[in-house]
Amino acid sequence: MEKYLKKAKEAASAIATLSPEKKKSVLKKMANDLVASSSYIVEQNRLDIEEGQRNNLSEALMDRLYLDKSRVEAMAQAVREIADLKEPVGRVLEGWVTDNGLRIEKVSIPIGVISIIYESRPNVTSDAAALCFKSGNVAILKGGKEAQKSNEAIAGIIQNSLESEGLPKAVISLLPDASREGVAKLIKMDRYVDLVIPRGGEGLIRYVSENATVPVVKHDKGLCHTYIHKGADFEEAIAIAINAKCQRPGVCNAMETLIVDEAIAGELLPQLKAAFESHDTELLGDSMTRQIIDVKEASEEDFATEYLANRLSIRLVSNIDEAISHIRKYGSGHSEAIVTNDHKAAEKFLNEVDAACVYVNASTRFTDGGAFGFGAEVGISTNKLHARGPMGINDLTTYKYKIFGEGQIR
Amino acid sequence: MEKYLKKAKEAASAIATLSPEKKKSVLKKMANDLVASSSYIVEQNRLDIEEGQRNNLSEALMDRLYLDKSRVEAMAQAVREIADLKEPVGRVLEGWVTDNGLRIEKVSIPIGVISIIYESRPNVTSDAAALCFKSGNVAILKGGKEAQKSNEAIAGIIQNSLESEGLPKAVISLLPDASREGVAKLIKMDRYVDLVIPRGGEGLIRYVSENATVPVVKHDKGLCHTYIHKGADFEEAIAIAINAKCQRPGVCNAMETLIVDEAIAGELLPQLKAAFESHDTELLGDSMTRQIIDVKEASEEDFATEYLANRLSIRLVSNIDEAISHIRKYGSGHSEAIVTNDHKAAEKFLNEVDAACVYVNASTRFTDGGAFGFGAEVGISTNKLHARGPMGINDLTTYKYKIFGEGQIR
Repeated sequence: MEKYLKKAKEAASAIATLSPEKKKSVLKKMANDLVASSSYIVEQNRLDIEEGQRNNLSEALMDRLYLDKSRVEAMAQAVREIADLKEPVGRVLEGWVTDNGLRIEKVSIPIGVISIIYESRPNVTSDAAALCFKSGNVAILKGGKEAQKSNEAIAGIIQNSLESEGLPKAVISLLPDASREGVAKLIKMDRYVDLVIPRGGEGLIRYVSENATVPVVKHDKGLCHTYIHKGADFEEAIAIAINAKCQRPGVCNAMETLIVDEAIAGELLPQLKAAFESHDTELLGDSMTRQIIDVKEASEEDFATEYLANRLSIRLVSNIDEAISHIRKYGSGHSEAIVTNDHKAAEKFLNEVDAACVYVNASTRFTDGGAFGFGAEVGISTNKLHARGPMGINDLTTYKYKIFGEGQIR
Repeated sequence: MEKYLKKAKEAASAIATLSPEKKKSVLKKMANDLVASSSYIVEQNRLDIEEGQRNNLSEALMDRLYLDKSRVEAMAQAVREIADLKEPVGRVLEGWVTDNGLRIEKVSIPIGVISIIYESRPNVTSDAAALCFKSGNVAILKGGKEAQKSNEAIAGIIQNSLESEGLPKAVISLLPDASREGVAKLIKMDRYVDLVIPRGGEGLIRYVSENATVPVVKHDKGLCHTYIHKGADFEEAIAIAINAKCQRPGVCNAMETLIVDEAIAGELLPQLKAAFESHDTELLGDSMTRQIIDVKEASEEDFATEYLANRLSIRLVSNIDEAISHIRKYGSGHSEAIVTNDHKAAEKFLNEVDAACVYVNASTRFTDGGAFGFGAEVGISTNKLHARGPMGINDLTTYKYKIFGEGQIR
């Protein structure tokens, strides 16, 4: 493992200063090579699919695993789009001159060696590889074991593209030991690895956070709320609530709990109930909610659960402070929304709710690199430090200070 | 410990949204209260001094520990200067409108609960407290045990200032269990603590990095180089080298190794030797250096050592690539300098050397929040993520996205 990581570290200095033009052409080559080898990728993917069938993987998991020629074409297209992103390295983030005439520039640079640990979608392999490469970083990838053959095929093709462009294979590689022990070793290797990004189940993320000496940017759960304030437009509120819950219930930026002001609950809750029922949403409510509409009881545990399903807890509050307190207690700091036309309430919510993304009059479903306009997305960080919320390619850079002197001494 | 940290976490939401005016007035009150209680602080400091004498602390340590009325006045003055820094919270870092009309603002906010672990200078207690408070963060401070009585006196006065201004004492406090076990517990409490900043010996920093689940920003060692390129102006090069080594040898941004191009070594080394000898610097050199000037041999270990003393290793190289390789192998990523008038060499060095601060024609001694113009300094980060190099008060903030919609759904 140490020998492998040493090579990765060495490769990092080789690619940190590649020209934007060269990076772009290598990525375009990768995309073309993926398409040219799509039969081979699909063939290897069949082996994963067969293994998955033997292991009775769920239909959802099988769908995420599955590749055909058009999905490989989409993977290649994503790589081409990453190739065309604005160059992330060398941006001058700040610059100034000190009293004694030193000219200081704060400039974005690659982080170095980045490891990304993810689940079973093989397209993440090419996405993550391309994002790391475009930002001048070495990528150590560790995908789900269900997709092992597919990932090996994709990574192999990418490594051939690198070699044919005169770059070392170590620039993008799969972690050779993909077992739990392999991950355990990797996350302690802070001499060689500069950042680890775990994406996946809570268990994995907790394990990595607790054991890593390498800095971690987590992609943890989203327990998101929408608060319908008494100053809301009802039609807008219902549309936002339905969208936040039902458009794609299984994702981290979907709403899990709806908070409603008591003052409007008598009129609004029956309308909400009808709207959610037409979307087959299972509703649960606190005791006050249940005095107005006939729904199951929401327990303390329900309010603390990320359902990732078409189920919704409802809580009534007497004012905005109670709503904010509820979110402080149960929220995961991911995405929170208020629906209101009351300016002071909107400002208070925006300022006092501590979450990566705080919305006024929009669906929490927009917490996403694509929706934010970042182009390709690295993920959605639930860290407070380094990167928070949707991560674009610029979040795969750090910075250095360049200081230009004329002989200054202290 | 958990009860104590819970209070700290609660206090964090209380102070995150304090107005800039209020923060300024509380800090001014703290400064005045410190001056008004200077007799008490000095009295308590005497107990630490006496204990230090009993334990035969070094003269340098005793000097750092020592307080008198004028040093307390200087502490208060530093707090006043922090009060007058530009408000770090609420800066709009970026802002844009998405295609569907969402207005997105990336806004700086406090990190939350910050723990700072430091050595025996009692003024760090008031500095760190003021920096955290000004940036809207709760401070959990853990100073060296040699300064325990002094720190208790300072923190007690600050807590009284907080209370008299209607704020909870938990906003700024000393870690109640200041033992190694107390620190061990603290750094695992990621539910309550958002960031830990260890400043001090390598052992402490290594321990915290290896065991923390709380994110860590390290203030690690500086093994800094100055490379005199063949295109250098000799007079300038000698002045910079002398300053980088001798002006204050015991600090992290002082030079430890001087790298010189072979092409100019025959002429330059004797001049350098004479200059360093007049500053009582002990010189060591590699074999090629020793063919030109009569100095002791520098071993492999010397090149890997942060002397923190008036001692210098000298290495000759045949070209800039060899210099950069040497720095890659032995440098700590802190501060590195090239002296040259050759533009291409300067650009190459700036781009290829991976360090927080890379200098052309200036002394590495400028790596410092004050010298950078940040006002008060939190420290000098050797992290690659979150904050790198001199940390100003803005580095004690993170960000959230505020998203302003008009009913947008996906």
